[in-house]
Amino acid sequence: MAQKGDLMTVRSDIKVLDATIRDGGLVNNFMFSDEFINALYRANVKAGVDYMEFGYKASKELFDVTKFGKWKFCTEEDLRAIVGDNNSDMKIAVMADVGRCDFKNDIIDKIDSVIDMVRVATYVHQMPAAIEIIEDAKAKGYEVTCNIMAISNAKEADIDQALEMVGNSSVDGIYLVDSYGSLYPEQIRSIADKYMEAAEKYGKYIGMHAHNNQQLAFANTIEAAARGVSLLDATMMSMGRGAGNCAMELLLSFLKNPKYNIFPVLKFLEEYMLPLKESGAVWGYDIPYLLTGRLNLHPSSAIDFTKDERNDYSEFYTDLLDK
Amino acid sequence: MAQKGDLMTVRSDIKVLDATIRDGGLVNNFMFSDEFINALYRANVKAGVDYMEFGYKASKELFDVTKFGKWKFCTEEDLRAIVGDNNSDMKIAVMADVGRCDFKNDIIDKIDSVIDMVRVATYVHQMPAAIEIIEDAKAKGYEVTCNIMAISNAKEADIDQALEMVGNSSVDGIYLVDSYGSLYPEQIRSIADKYMEAAEKYGKYIGMHAHNNQQLAFANTIEAAARGVSLLDATMMSMGRGAGNCAMELLLSFLKNPKYNIFPVLKFLEEYMLPLKESGAVWGYDIPYLLTGRLNLHPSSAIDFTKDERNDYSEFYTDLLDK
Repeated sequence: MAQKGDLMTVRSDIKVLDATIRDGGLVNNFMFSDEFINALYRANVKAGVDYMEFGYKASKELFDVTKFGKWKFCTEEDLRAIVGDNNSDMKIAVMADVGRCDFKNDIIDKIDSVIDMVRVATYVHQMPAAIEIIEDAKAKGYEVTCNIMAISNAKEADIDQALEMVGNSSVDGIYLVDSYGSLYPEQIRSIADKYMEAAEKYGKYIGMHAHNNQQLAFANTIEAAARGVSLLDATMMSMGRGAGNCAMELLLSFLKNPKYNIFPVLKFLEEYMLPLKESGAVWGYDIPYLLTGRLNLHPSSAIDFTKDERNDYSEFYTDLLDK
Repeated sequence: MAQKGDLMTVRSDIKVLDATIRDGGLVNNFMFSDEFINALYRANVKAGVDYMEFGYKASKELFDVTKFGKWKFCTEEDLRAIVGDNNSDMKIAVMADVGRCDFKNDIIDKIDSVIDMVRVATYVHQMPAAIEIIEDAKAKGYEVTCNIMAISNAKEADIDQALEMVGNSSVDGIYLVDSYGSLYPEQIRSIADKYMEAAEKYGKYIGMHAHNNQQLAFANTIEAAARGVSLLDATMMSMGRGAGNCAMELLLSFLKNPKYNIFPVLKFLEEYMLPLKESGAVWGYDIPYLLTGRLNLHPSSAIDFTKDERNDYSEFYTDLLDK
């Protein structure tokens, strides 16, 4: 693939998705105040963000509603309490996790919903189940993406086959997801080329969802974009599981499209994200996440290490090497 | 230029320089304890680091010695109190700043010194003065690099001419320095190609010194390396002016040469860097540095903003736009 775009001009195909509530909700069990969500919605609209992901469509049969904030479930009622009929240019997205979503009942017809996009999160080995959700959501009228997670741990032949399978589905977009934050820009470029090949073959677009374990989330996101990837995930102050994601403030300061405006983002950061951090929510690049990222491991042990306020990095590293 | 090396094999030409004391000293006026410096020296030797920069060779005529720690001056006596005769494979570097160093008197013959390398820091418009120091240090027997600072603010024709000038000098290596942390990987690749062209023409090597204003210090360092740049600066926990530098722990976890060992680095971080941070030294990526980096400005106003414990990012941004 040739490079797409340059550092001076606008790539009008590029769109930005704010995943703060969804990936950030993994930090605080989705316990955001309504005021926070309201302000975030308004900041995103003002900033020119194209999509805002509100959370998961998790099954209330599977998860105890008293243990999670409402954005793990994203009911129509809760969404409308924030966005009304969403009279804005920004689209509303939710995530449906394979095996954790009662999609047949909980995802209603688009015509009755304020939701615009359903993002189907799946591991490579769950593709048939993912495609079932994709086809259901497409038939109901939604824009649909397939977010294939943890590819740094999957075999290349399996990724190739997953791309063929989802390419042949009705999905609109396919996401390159670096769940463990373990991929270097050089790898991202070659994986993006592979995904773009599938995109061109099947008429899909490609998205990028990065994690910041090695301080590469922003770099990997813009490198993927330069290969043609066009739907870019970011979160406010990089809030997200473990080391967090690509920071919205970095991404919007990079993009050249004048429709993007960093000022409302900066306002939101100072008024809402700093107090959230001060209240005890913990995320962002730190040494233990670097180590799990480097070793291509799920960040869970690093999250525990951080929660326990440990700082014996060398001991932690020795333990990881035994895993 | 073609890519050099890959993600599996060793590039034996790549060397790592620890700049913790020198760039980190700009955070705390070089007020490190002897115990800290001793432990850092030993950690670097164990980690396989190739060069350790101890600080500046600043003139005691120009700077008040009561206001700075000893590593702003790096006398032979102070160096030897830490390293003895430096019976290790690691080389000792110091920085000579154009206009701030009485090099004729303060840099003695290599044969009488424990220092191995003199790094000459210069702006593009000071090249003749830089070359005077370079030739002096080479004549005295040192390995010498020329670190051309703030190139993101210099005209390309001036950079080209500076490369010709220093290429024709006796210097051993030339550094690509992103002083403001404002360059993207795409720019770093093309600038690195330009520097590598000069390197091949004149028989020099190229180094990389990055700043982390946009969380790109590590990404830019490894991207430069992939273009052939071979002397890579890093600092412990990225300690350095403002947003800091490329983190040593990230760089050593990336490099494939088995001579590098991240374990003593992790030990040093937990035993010395965390207490240093807790004692009040402030550095590292933060929103105000992103904004100065993005706007290609010196980080000084962001450093003041951080020191004043302000968090009105949006106001700060508005002020910057007026500069």
